[in-house]
Amino acid sequence: MTVINETLTVQTKGYGHLINITDQLSSVLKASGVKKGILTVFVVGSTASITTFEYEPGLIKDMGELYEKLVPSNKTYHHDATWGDGNGFSHVRAALQGPSLTVPFEDSSLYLGTWQQVVIADFDNRPRNRSFVINIIGE
Amino acid sequence: MTVINETLTVQTKGYGHLINITDQLSSVLKASGVKKGILTVFVVGSTASITTFEYEPGLIKDMGELYEKLVPSNKTYHHDATWGDGNGFSHVRAALQGPSLTVPFEDSSLYLGTWQQVVIADFDNRPRNRSFVINIIGE
Amino acid sequence: MTVINETLTVQTKGYGHLINITDQLSSVLKASGVKKGILTVFVVGSTASITTFEYEPGLIKDMGELYEKLVPSNKTYHHDATWGDGNGFSHVRAALQGPSLTVPFEDSSLYLGTWQQVVIADFDNRPRNRSFVINIIGE
Repeated sequence: MTVINETLTVQTKGYGHLINITDQLSSVLKASGVKKGILTVFVVGSTASITTFEYEPGLIKDMGELYEKLVPSNKTYHHDATWGDGNGFSHVRAALQGPSLTVPFEDSSLYLGTWQQVVIADFDNRPRNRSFVINIIGE
Repeated sequence: MTVINETLTVQTKGYGHLINITDQLSSVLKASGVKKGILTVFVVGSTASITTFEYEPGLIKDMGELYEKLVPSNKTYHHDATWGDGNGFSHVRAALQGPSLTVPFEDSSLYLGTWQQVVIADFDNRPRNRSFVINIIGE
Repeated sequence: MTVINETLTVQTKGYGHLINITDQLSSVLKASGVKKGILTVFVVGSTASITTFEYEPGLIKDMGELYEKLVPSNKTYHHDATWGDGNGFSHVRAALQGPSLTVPFEDSSLYLGTWQQVVIADFDNRPRNRSFVINIIGE
């Protein structure tokens, strides 16, 4: 049994930028030589999230509209009064969607559907150099 | 330490069909002989999700009404223009709720509450033969 | 490779009480002596959830307002007819937010951001003695 942590970073535009990180996960998994187990992705910070969806332009717009509906960006949040950086909506969205995802794999290949990509949502109100950790446990 | 993947399928009706898979998880766990560790369930595909709730008729209706409120099915989504299969709402709901769940176990028994069941939500707009992967890691 | 389960309890006020459990997680992790792996937190029961956010008074209010907006407490739910305990909204909120979180760690230190705390939300409509399980797998 082997356990590996690897931290990657991705340059984001913020403002709900959705980034497909599936290829990075697959590359790290192949390079690890681990055949069977689970891969956990965890995005570090309180204004970004991880989920899966079909990464195509229509759905990318739909997801942006969903977050805007559930947690509008043109509202004032109590958090804004605390720090004055105006990104209360980013924090609330990130907490709702959640920062981690765990995916089983076999033959060093993730059990994702053909149209199911792993996506980081950066909800912050500025570009970020965003870190995420890939943990692999298996044999 | 042992690691196991097992893929099961369940016949769903789609349209937000909620299926209690707790017994399947428990059976696979008992059969594995693994006593202590974590069990991860991952639903393959981009129009289904996993969560836990008390699986009783009232709450099953409540969850359906929640998803309808947050992501209405009678709206047109940008995704619908991409493929023309009219299930944009299914994709958005699945991305919001998420495809994976990890539950610790001891004595080959999941740490679920008495009224806490593991449930797949199939949001697609047609019946599906839905696959999910059970991963067990432990000793 | 080592696997550990530890159950902790926390006294909550219910009604969406948000409790920062980051210090408890870190303590259990340090005491375990495990250096590298993943830590899973799972809250037992169907009226509580786990997520991460910056645990400060403004955001604590914002999260409360989010849950109230998405799943109002002054509405009647079908679940209320089943048991008559009036906490349908608690169950729906818990199912939406989800009961588990997995965080990688290195040098016995969780990969959390500086302003990213692990928080239990107790949505029930009464004070609870709430149990959660910490599972650690690693080496």
